[in-house]
Amino acid sequence: MISKVYKEMLNGKSVIRQLSEFATARGAEIGYENVFDYSLGNPSVPVPSGFNDTIKKLIDELSPMALHGYSQSLGIPAVREKIANSLNRRFGMDYTADHIFMTSGAAGAIAHAVRCVTEPGDEVLTFAPYFPEYNPYINLTGAVLKIVPPNTKDFQINFEAFSEMLSEKVMAVLINTPNNPSGIAYSEETIKKLSEILTEKSKEYGHEIYIISDEPYREILFDNKELIYVSKYYDYTLSCYSYSKSLSVPGERIGYVAINPKCPFAKEMVVMCGQISRGIGHNCPSSIIQLAVAETCDLTADLSVYETNMNLIYDELIDLGFTVVRPGGTFYIFPKALEDDAKVFCEKALKYDLILVPADSFGCPGYFRMAYCIDTEKVKRSLVALRKFVETEYPNR
Amino acid sequence: MISKVYKEMLNGKSVIRQLSEFATARGAEIGYENVFDYSLGNPSVPVPSGFNDTIKKLIDELSPMALHGYSQSLGIPAVREKIANSLNRRFGMDYTADHIFMTSGAAGAIAHAVRCVTEPGDEVLTFAPYFPEYNPYINLTGAVLKIVPPNTKDFQINFEAFSEMLSEKVMAVLINTPNNPSGIAYSEETIKKLSEILTEKSKEYGHEIYIISDEPYREILFDNKELIYVSKYYDYTLSCYSYSKSLSVPGERIGYVAINPKCPFAKEMVVMCGQISRGIGHNCPSSIIQLAVAETCDLTADLSVYETNMNLIYDELIDLGFTVVRPGGTFYIFPKALEDDAKVFCEKALKYDLILVPADSFGCPGYFRMAYCIDTEKVKRSLVALRKFVETEYPNR
Repeated sequence: MISKVYKEMLNGKSVIRQLSEFATARGAEIGYENVFDYSLGNPSVPVPSGFNDTIKKLIDELSPMALHGYSQSLGIPAVREKIANSLNRRFGMDYTADHIFMTSGAAGAIAHAVRCVTEPGDEVLTFAPYFPEYNPYINLTGAVLKIVPPNTKDFQINFEAFSEMLSEKVMAVLINTPNNPSGIAYSEETIKKLSEILTEKSKEYGHEIYIISDEPYREILFDNKELIYVSKYYDYTLSCYSYSKSLSVPGERIGYVAINPKCPFAKEMVVMCGQISRGIGHNCPSSIIQLAVAETCDLTADLSVYETNMNLIYDELIDLGFTVVRPGGTFYIFPKALEDDAKVFCEKALKYDLILVPADSFGCPGYFRMAYCIDTEKVKRSLVALRKFVETEYPNR
Repeated sequence: MISKVYKEMLNGKSVIRQLSEFATARGAEIGYENVFDYSLGNPSVPVPSGFNDTIKKLIDELSPMALHGYSQSLGIPAVREKIANSLNRRFGMDYTADHIFMTSGAAGAIAHAVRCVTEPGDEVLTFAPYFPEYNPYINLTGAVLKIVPPNTKDFQINFEAFSEMLSEKVMAVLINTPNNPSGIAYSEETIKKLSEILTEKSKEYGHEIYIISDEPYREILFDNKELIYVSKYYDYTLSCYSYSKSLSVPGERIGYVAINPKCPFAKEMVVMCGQISRGIGHNCPSSIIQLAVAETCDLTADLSVYETNMNLIYDELIDLGFTVVRPGGTFYIFPKALEDDAKVFCEKALKYDLILVPADSFGCPGYFRMAYCIDTEKVKRSLVALRKFVETEYPNR
């Protein structure tokens, strides 16, 4: 026999994937340069040259076993130490290597973090709009993901709905700031309020409620905003990071879980992550990639194109009369569709070769997402198509 | 709260790990070159230079996105195709890219394969002596691992015990040939008989019983023996492979599941593996490492040292009067201890700075494992210590 659970998952094809396939097929017809594909959140800028140079240098300088040998199950100790030091320098934390567990990207980090702080049946809350992959990520651990409805005013947290849903069964709250799909970064006020509520409820329920902070977009911030490092505000935080976006190396599958040293179980939980790995078959990211990020963890790719694109798109959307909250970071923007059913809206856009993603699966119907990790030149051409689409289909908007 | 399951796992420390730590500590005292550490199965030969050259070439020739961009969730299609072709050439199979799923080593491969063909509560059988990590690997998927007792005559399969345990609840049989810890390669006769029994029982029970074939030592064969490719003999085979040993790159975490094209669900199961990945946070091995193995999958490191070491150790063991079956491959040998309790035997060996692993946790009490992936020069010196140990402690053997 074959597994029912996973077989049934084959029936549910993600909207993003379907649209991306449509874009590829349409590209084959009219040239991909003429398809304005805002479907996939794939980093589009080159890796910093220091990353590739480091790999070559490691090959030249290290012995084969130091380069390609087994890494300890928690990650290479020297790598974990360099990452801890980098986080301490940048965010004023007190991590040591013992608080860092190396993972294959943020997906791997979340797989470990959730298993660390939940038992099957426990609840994890997240906030709409949210990354739809959180559903399989969380639910296949045995925990149950519940979605707090959005605050569409500014896409900060809807605290009223949150407080109602924060029952005794909730063991963790999964946040993502800056956010996919809204592009919004939580304000310091939001993080502080969230921490206060969790501290209070942890006491009331007699068990810790953890923040699992998914922060792959941490370094893509606009308007020279300073980064709010979530763990600074709440001791029971597991920070899940990926270098996919900051170093533009999504294929290399490298990231970590960093557990706040003030959490009394922090070091124990890192060792538990090593145990979790045995069951999920993970056993560390590539050793050469671990060694390379240790040397380059203070670098980023040139991420400025995302802000350039955002400004162009935001200004045009406002000019066209869209309701849209200005993103604080990421490479996403999240406008309200010009009719109630965002699916219909996005379907109409296809006629203009605009690939927009309706936000029903992000827990926020009536909105759509644009992933603007594409060339600025193409963004400019797409805005001509966008204007034509809107003026033709919604003349009386 | 933190997870009970994983917290409790922290109490069980593996014997191998304890002995390896002892060896490291003793090495700090007397010099590691004087500790005859046969505890860990870590490849000790250098990566073939073609592997590192390929990485440098890929960096020079590919665009950053082709090199470091997201791989498709099943692995990079061109990589899967090259691996399929290599397997077809070498073993006369008919794989296409659609039958190959890229994983982070054999541990990742098993994590996917087991989830593919079992539901929680189903049984998986394996044969003693067996790799003790199979316990967390299998049991944390929700399936239940049961151990068929060993055939200590030649460490082929104990078919009598197997047939008794092969109940309707068994959905898969996990085999490992050449075997860790025995070093034995299953004969063609063994594989044929296993296939016959499984074919018959699959019919009787009305559901397929799969072979999950864990074959990281496939290329380490002695006496010019030809490799028996398990999947050739049984259509319902999921071959789990790692390049850790053949290319000597255990830290790079790269391998695959290859599903027999004659299995009617083969392609579907590969796509299911992509779904399984979402829940276990795996999402592909490193892209640069995938691309590198695609170019080097027909190479191996110079593995001849393992055979040299085996011959030296085997001859000395025989000369000293040990009962031992001559290994057909791997870098393990599995003699009977010179007293009933192998733990006591191995403890006595420590006085001679010989680090031997008692086989209780391998499901085969009374035996011990030596992992001879160490320098031949050290092997030679260790045999002097072994002789002294045996002659002093067991003068009347």
